[in-house]
Amino acid sequence: MSELNGNLLVAQSGGPTAVINASVAGVIQQAGRNECIEEIYGGVNGIWGILREELIDLNDEKARSIEGLKHTPAAALGTCRYKLDFKEKPEQAEKDMARLFDVFMAHNIRYFFYVGGNDSQDTAHKIHLEALKRSFEMRVVGVPKTIDNDLPHTDHCPGYGSVVKYAAATVMEIAADVGSMVTEHGSCCVIEVMGRDAGWIAGGTVLAKRAAHEAPHIILTPEILFNEAVFIARVKEVVSTLQCCVVVVGEGLKNEKGVEVAADHTRLDPFGHPVLSGVGEFIESLVGDRLSKVKTRSVKLGYAQRAASHFASLTDVNESAACGEAAVRAAIEDKSGVMVKLVRLSDNPYKCVPDLHPLEDIANGEHKVPRDWMTEDGLLPNQKFISYARPLIQGEVKVPIEDGLPKYVALNRTKVEKVLAPLS
Amino acid sequence: MSELNGNLLVAQSGGPTAVINASVAGVIQQAGRNECIEEIYGGVNGIWGILREELIDLNDEKARSIEGLKHTPAAALGTCRYKLDFKEKPEQAEKDMARLFDVFMAHNIRYFFYVGGNDSQDTAHKIHLEALKRSFEMRVVGVPKTIDNDLPHTDHCPGYGSVVKYAAATVMEIAADVGSMVTEHGSCCVIEVMGRDAGWIAGGTVLAKRAAHEAPHIILTPEILFNEAVFIARVKEVVSTLQCCVVVVGEGLKNEKGVEVAADHTRLDPFGHPVLSGVGEFIESLVGDRLSKVKTRSVKLGYAQRAASHFASLTDVNESAACGEAAVRAAIEDKSGVMVKLVRLSDNPYKCVPDLHPLEDIANGEHKVPRDWMTEDGLLPNQKFISYARPLIQGEVKVPIEDGLPKYVALNRTKVEKVLAPLS
Repeated sequence: MSELNGNLLVAQSGGPTAVINASVAGVIQQAGRNECIEEIYGGVNGIWGILREELIDLNDEKARSIEGLKHTPAAALGTCRYKLDFKEKPEQAEKDMARLFDVFMAHNIRYFFYVGGNDSQDTAHKIHLEALKRSFEMRVVGVPKTIDNDLPHTDHCPGYGSVVKYAAATVMEIAADVGSMVTEHGSCCVIEVMGRDAGWIAGGTVLAKRAAHEAPHIILTPEILFNEAVFIARVKEVVSTLQCCVVVVGEGLKNEKGVEVAADHTRLDPFGHPVLSGVGEFIESLVGDRLSKVKTRSVKLGYAQRAASHFASLTDVNESAACGEAAVRAAIEDKSGVMVKLVRLSDNPYKCVPDLHPLEDIANGEHKVPRDWMTEDGLLPNQKFISYARPLIQGEVKVPIEDGLPKYVALNRTKVEKVLAPLS
Repeated sequence: MSELNGNLLVAQSGGPTAVINASVAGVIQQAGRNECIEEIYGGVNGIWGILREELIDLNDEKARSIEGLKHTPAAALGTCRYKLDFKEKPEQAEKDMARLFDVFMAHNIRYFFYVGGNDSQDTAHKIHLEALKRSFEMRVVGVPKTIDNDLPHTDHCPGYGSVVKYAAATVMEIAADVGSMVTEHGSCCVIEVMGRDAGWIAGGTVLAKRAAHEAPHIILTPEILFNEAVFIARVKEVVSTLQCCVVVVGEGLKNEKGVEVAADHTRLDPFGHPVLSGVGEFIESLVGDRLSKVKTRSVKLGYAQRAASHFASLTDVNESAACGEAAVRAAIEDKSGVMVKLVRLSDNPYKCVPDLHPLEDIANGEHKVPRDWMTEDGLLPNQKFISYARPLIQGEVKVPIEDGLPKYVALNRTKVEKVLAPLS
């Protein structure tokens, strides 16, 4: 183990979550415990801002603000969807990579932590390889984040537990609401949740179902091609038995041809563009058409679900912070080119610990809901899914309240002086 | 004051809220303190169920369950949208009224409390008049409820504070999320909230705005006819200054002809029906069309907002329960044909007390957001609105949690034996 003195840079990338800031807090707090780490910088808006030499001094923030990041939603450092795309745009990618290392060298960045999902881990991996190529001593560690829970090799992803906790509570509340209204011919409420390719979020809302008659009654995931006949038959059955059917659908639901249901190009908006409206509304109108007497409604939680820190999972917050801390420990121990992962030791009592995994394995994998975690008809998760998801939503975060609303932290964002020429 | 011995019937009507059960709890708890009230019954699904003689024995519920109603969303007794429509369906209404009194007499109902909005208060008023006509000694008191906050003569309606608290927190969280993502040409996120004719909910989300640059940046209400040019200009201005514009829109936004924007019949769904999709999506596609480089998204909170007991306002819960108690006190004091209203004595410190108002004044009024509570351009509420709404969201309800999710109360619903012939 060789001690490496230098500065640290942490940045966030991809869609925010309720707990992505907790990982940053974990990085900062753990870094502060190590003397070899000198300055602690944040990259503004991920590599997009790092390319522009937009760094902020995180040592300048109050300890209380850093701790407060653990209950603050969205990306406190800012985030981006910018990629180093060596396949489609090799020239730009080469140029970007050179610029990134100009920035790293100019600011003596020896520790780089990138908090993000699939694409972000790919970026981290490429930076790691470039550092090796350049013999620039630098430790690059990825910190996982994604509400979609689709990163491979980790038991689950920080961010997932919180979105499920919020979405399941919301399903429970909506179900109580629609279930309490008498209707002549029954009702059906469709709730659209995120998840383009993986049904982890939709599936996780099964935790709201504590008895057979309780909602959700049907959960549609992107992994299982939508079978209209089977679905409508089930809605009909539920409505006739329980008066009210609550359906949860993942936004990326695909039809029998494997095409996203929500990207139906036969619908045009007032300006003649194809309507990319939600799959929730699509399912709602389908039910309304096939079972015309049933009263239908839909809800699209959208960004609300991934930003709902006011009802985040404490387990998730703690694990997210632990992943940030583990990343710094790994780097101090001379690890690079790895991502922190979570390894589950047992469901009950729940025990899960951070470990490391080579970044090269992460970028190209996608973790989907196994078919045998769903019931045979594909319309609900089974006990395997429930045992997996339940521990992840345990515990509540105590969010400080000011004047009746959550008090979230905003960083000072003291800028680090630029020393390079502006990005051309 | 004449003492009237007999049974009590309480029922709920119209759309549920996060706190409508708190009013029922208030009725039950206050009734328990008065010996003249013998049995305490609940009407299942409002008058729809009462017509079917579907009553439950609320004395049979545990005291803890009744207290738990104060943090339980939806209508614990069930609700309906059934009206006594003497104008359109006089024969049916006459028949229904006769049947209601058959039920009241069969079960010696001498105290009737109807918790609901405009239509429900109208029903209560008609029942009061019928009792007078029949010289059937009975005390009928309305308890206000509506997230829409559109009942006249009351400072505000129980249910409103909670929906605003939840919606404002959600706006704050979504704004943090979208504001943290860098985009090349800026972004605009549209959040649709409830409110068909009144902009109280949309307007209330202004409480999330604690500084001029903070969201929401634009609030569109049904009271102010939508001016596309003014709106688009403002979005453009906000995006160019702040990169990100968060718009809150009430579902009943009307175009310059006074027609609901969301009921645009030029759009057809896959089955050839007009799309009654949300105004949020409409505004989203409008921005996408007029400012084509701006990244747009929308969120439709739907039923989630009125059922969000996990983030209800304690002020609202306490006032809702107090309205239920005040209704019973009024009835005991020989009042009938009145609705409980809330009278504000001061904003700061906030002081608001229950009082009574004749039901005949309630049914035909609708309380809208005054024009001078909005800025001149009509795109944001002003300080008058803020001073009004802020006290209503104060305080948090401590919801018990079981296995990571809220633990809401379900009543035993012990049925009261029917004695009449079934409804023909």
